[in-house]
Amino acid sequence: MPSYTAPTKDLHFVLHDLLQISTSDVPGYADLDADFTSAILEEAAKLGQNVMAPLNASGDAEGCRLENGMVYTPKGFKHAFDQIKAGGWNGLDLPEDFGGQNLPYLIGSAVGEIFVSANMALNMYQGLTHGAISAILAHGSDAQKATYLPKMVSMDWTGTMNLTEPHCGTDLGLMRTKAEPQADGSYKITGQKIFISAGDHDMAENVIHLVLAKAPGGGAGTKGISLFIVPKFLVGEDGSLGARNGVSVGSIEEKMGIHANATCVMNYDAATGYLIGDLHKGMRAMFTMMNEARIGVGLQGYAQAAVAYDNARAYALDRLQGRDVTGAKNPDGPADPLIVHPDVRRMLMDQKSFVEGARAFTLWGASLIDRAHRMQDKDADGLISLLTPVIKGFLTDKGFDMCIQAQQVYGGHGYIEEWGMSQFARDARIAMIYEGANGVQALDLVGRKLAQDSGKHVMAFFEIVKTFIKENENDARLEGFLVPLKAASKDLQAAAMFFMQRGMKAPNDALAGSTDFMHLFGHVCLGLVWARMAKAAYAALESSTSDRDFYDAKIATGRYYMARHLPATALHLARIQSGAETVMALDAAHF
Amino acid sequence: MPSYTAPTKDLHFVLHDLLQISTSDVPGYADLDADFTSAILEEAAKLGQNVMAPLNASGDAEGCRLENGMVYTPKGFKHAFDQIKAGGWNGLDLPEDFGGQNLPYLIGSAVGEIFVSANMALNMYQGLTHGAISAILAHGSDAQKATYLPKMVSMDWTGTMNLTEPHCGTDLGLMRTKAEPQADGSYKITGQKIFISAGDHDMAENVIHLVLAKAPGGGAGTKGISLFIVPKFLVGEDGSLGARNGVSVGSIEEKMGIHANATCVMNYDAATGYLIGDLHKGMRAMFTMMNEARIGVGLQGYAQAAVAYDNARAYALDRLQGRDVTGAKNPDGPADPLIVHPDVRRMLMDQKSFVEGARAFTLWGASLIDRAHRMQDKDADGLISLLTPVIKGFLTDKGFDMCIQAQQVYGGHGYIEEWGMSQFARDARIAMIYEGANGVQALDLVGRKLAQDSGKHVMAFFEIVKTFIKENENDARLEGFLVPLKAASKDLQAAAMFFMQRGMKAPNDALAGSTDFMHLFGHVCLGLVWARMAKAAYAALESSTSDRDFYDAKIATGRYYMARHLPATALHLARIQSGAETVMALDAAHF
Repeated sequence: MPSYTAPTKDLHFVLHDLLQISTSDVPGYADLDADFTSAILEEAAKLGQNVMAPLNASGDAEGCRLENGMVYTPKGFKHAFDQIKAGGWNGLDLPEDFGGQNLPYLIGSAVGEIFVSANMALNMYQGLTHGAISAILAHGSDAQKATYLPKMVSMDWTGTMNLTEPHCGTDLGLMRTKAEPQADGSYKITGQKIFISAGDHDMAENVIHLVLAKAPGGGAGTKGISLFIVPKFLVGEDGSLGARNGVSVGSIEEKMGIHANATCVMNYDAATGYLIGDLHKGMRAMFTMMNEARIGVGLQGYAQAAVAYDNARAYALDRLQGRDVTGAKNPDGPADPLIVHPDVRRMLMDQKSFVEGARAFTLWGASLIDRAHRMQDKDADGLISLLTPVIKGFLTDKGFDMCIQAQQVYGGHGYIEEWGMSQFARDARIAMIYEGANGVQALDLVGRKLAQDSGKHVMAFFEIVKTFIKENENDARLEGFLVPLKAASKDLQAAAMFFMQRGMKAPNDALAGSTDFMHLFGHVCLGLVWARMAKAAYAALESSTSDRDFYDAKIATGRYYMARHLPATALHLARIQSGAETVMALDAAHF
Repeated sequence: MPSYTAPTKDLHFVLHDLLQISTSDVPGYADLDADFTSAILEEAAKLGQNVMAPLNASGDAEGCRLENGMVYTPKGFKHAFDQIKAGGWNGLDLPEDFGGQNLPYLIGSAVGEIFVSANMALNMYQGLTHGAISAILAHGSDAQKATYLPKMVSMDWTGTMNLTEPHCGTDLGLMRTKAEPQADGSYKITGQKIFISAGDHDMAENVIHLVLAKAPGGGAGTKGISLFIVPKFLVGEDGSLGARNGVSVGSIEEKMGIHANATCVMNYDAATGYLIGDLHKGMRAMFTMMNEARIGVGLQGYAQAAVAYDNARAYALDRLQGRDVTGAKNPDGPADPLIVHPDVRRMLMDQKSFVEGARAFTLWGASLIDRAHRMQDKDADGLISLLTPVIKGFLTDKGFDMCIQAQQVYGGHGYIEEWGMSQFARDARIAMIYEGANGVQALDLVGRKLAQDSGKHVMAFFEIVKTFIKENENDARLEGFLVPLKAASKDLQAAAMFFMQRGMKAPNDALAGSTDFMHLFGHVCLGLVWARMAKAAYAALESSTSDRDFYDAKIATGRYYMARHLPATALHLARIQSGAETVMALDAAHF
């Protein structure tokens, strides 16, 4: 059976040593002293470790089932869901007006990592609700907010996002679901939506579906799309639940993973829906949800790698097999632990250095969101908009790879479901696909975000890297971080330059290199946060006499990242600079 | 539902244009004219496409079950197994004395790709039998051969390999299974073996287990290990089946994939066993089986990628989503096919160029085995011994990655089991683990094979590359192949040099870079076979007026490999040259 121990110390390091939140000027951050964040993280850890994680494997094995139109979640899920609900965890970073605690998004993200590592499928019921709340907060009327938000913040009701249809995934312009206006101002929604995560279940009284559909008069393609609230049970003016709406579950998909989350085919049969936001501006409203959702998915990518690493580490320390070639480390035992072998260490260091870097990168991103929202900081908003596809695409691609590598540490046992390593990989796999497949993230990065506001945000990113290097170039301890960071950053600039020079004339040159660019960018981001973490660790070693091993390990782990991961930037640049020629040479008929 | 079309044309190209088997001096190759190999491949394709492939998804969904000590395979498997048997496919490359057809191993491998792509789990029952036959052929007495081989070649009986125990995987010295000598010369075998593929089933009359166990007097560690034949039903002198032996199935493992192959816990309870080969020399006998088995597993890696690619290609041509940024390609339809998008093409070209290169590399390797066996060519034997861990480790790592990428082409549908892309990835995953996890392959390559016969074989490999480049350097058409091949080969030599200079003094420096070296080596091998295939394709274009599109596509696909895959050698070299320092820096307690 896999286990889980929340990395509260590492989270503390990122929040306080790296991001130094208690002295930050972001409104609300000053309240977040070490005692306060520790108390929250410890409570989250208890819930994750003792309640959610023990249901992860059993939930995977049992899955959800549809009986007589009702969706049933696996044994124990309702009980765990009730405890998440009772703890008010869903409202942690939501407005007090609707029952939340108004803590920063950053804290919600730190807690989110713990819950996702503990039980990704279970946490998704909450995560989807959170996304739907964000959309209603941003685009709903006051009446809609009053009707839906208190119950959703408390998780008496959960939420969903309905975009995809059988013939239409990324290309939402092909959408067929229709919204017919009614005399009372509502709409009748008719059509079929697929891949609806948390589409229905037996843990909440009501499910509030946010549904994209085409209302008359909007024109072709995505222009005609509007966003609607479609509750499973209609809600009376007094907030009471009324009749069942015309929405039903057609089936639950059989998937590679996240079996305990019901991925539903939803059939809308003249269901009553309420327009949210402006008519025919549904795409814009949906994107509000999507940007935060994408960071949440990036977090899933590294959180699965984190729990997989946690288990691989334990296994490598415990499993006796072979001998250290430089001399037995466990001479009285029948063999040495796996961890003595350099190739096993390589795998563990790959995982550890990725996970810790990804955590720092994601939480830095979350702090940018707080800065953007709480201070109306346009630069922070632009920067996180640029980094969002990198967080989503790079961290989920790499997070999956690291789950596979953690599984590999187990040898044959890694392939056996009982050990749980297969589930981490199978669950992590979806994060590369949903909320925009990673190729779409790369397209968003190269096709939109790079040139946004005349390239201002990517220039700002380069400036951050340059300034950090300049400010620290006299610190000899950081040389092993700054030299590779500089080289990697130069590769990133060369790639951006290649796109600028060629992208206008030959857009395929940029598009053929988009995924490599996303990975190149991701490596530079992790190189940057590792250099910053090394600096923070050296500072802590100077000011404190305790936990020296922890800070030393942090620096050693960062050095590994710089030596072994970061050189990948040159490969990505070489691929980018090879352009579109070899990619596009074959006629479609000759594949 | 996934589909499968056997790549008979590509196999023909490798056999005849690249390897030019009909004019080869290897005994038996002269009989293999194009008509003959086409007839075989077409028959294999029919069986694979029409009989085996249609059972792949259903076999995965149903899995095997153990009831009252009996293992039952999924619906339809027995029928398909009988057809493989009736066609004499198992004996294709086995001696005529025992009912085989004595065709080259190369032909067996080409057919093997088709069967593995069609249904890996089903093919394993045959594959394991083939491995057991090889061991009996190499080490069995004449009487043992006469008793077991005819029935195994015909697949009336199947075979297994029993190495692993719960506490002992790679480190076989920890083995506990005991063999007690009996007065009649037989042994009583007692112990538990796990992860026994095709351990039992309902398709054959008998199962012949090859079991490693410790007989008294052999000393500690692997020295005391001997190899035994342990039949499920004892065999009388007349070949008739007698009493059930003391071997039983404890359970069937729940695995990530290959559900239709019964992976059994086998309990030996004073089971009657017969020593095969020399007492206490069991490891050597096992390695005979293992080298060919490892090439077979490498083949599984790329064969799963091949069928996954075949489906991804079809999906990308069929699925309409979005528009070509350079202008609509399907203006009358609602959208263009996925294949117009450069990032989708990148994924498909990654897969196509890997699969075709891997096929050529593996079949070249198979031809070296024929040369070694049929001509007692020691150089060929040494070279294939060097390349075996590369074929196994590199092709299964990359093959899995390519299955994941093929799955990614499907977007959300890739995650749904119904589409079959998940199964290709889940099935391919095991190939990175069994027959020696890929880290063990890398260790074998760097720790043993590289220095074997004073490094003679790796020098021979470099000579092959060098000679090819020299012989063709005036052919301007090949410049795009020779320049990158030369650079990649230089990286490989630098890595080998690094190990030679540092490996003796600091073995961890070599071990910490072993997996990167295996991948670096793999890329050079694929670069070499692609350069050769390009040359062969140009030759065909000169001599023939038909199939020009096929040969042009071959060259274009090779160019992609050289431009996009091969630059990875520099990254692997950088990692190798960073040495063991960052890998070994952390104390085990600080992971």
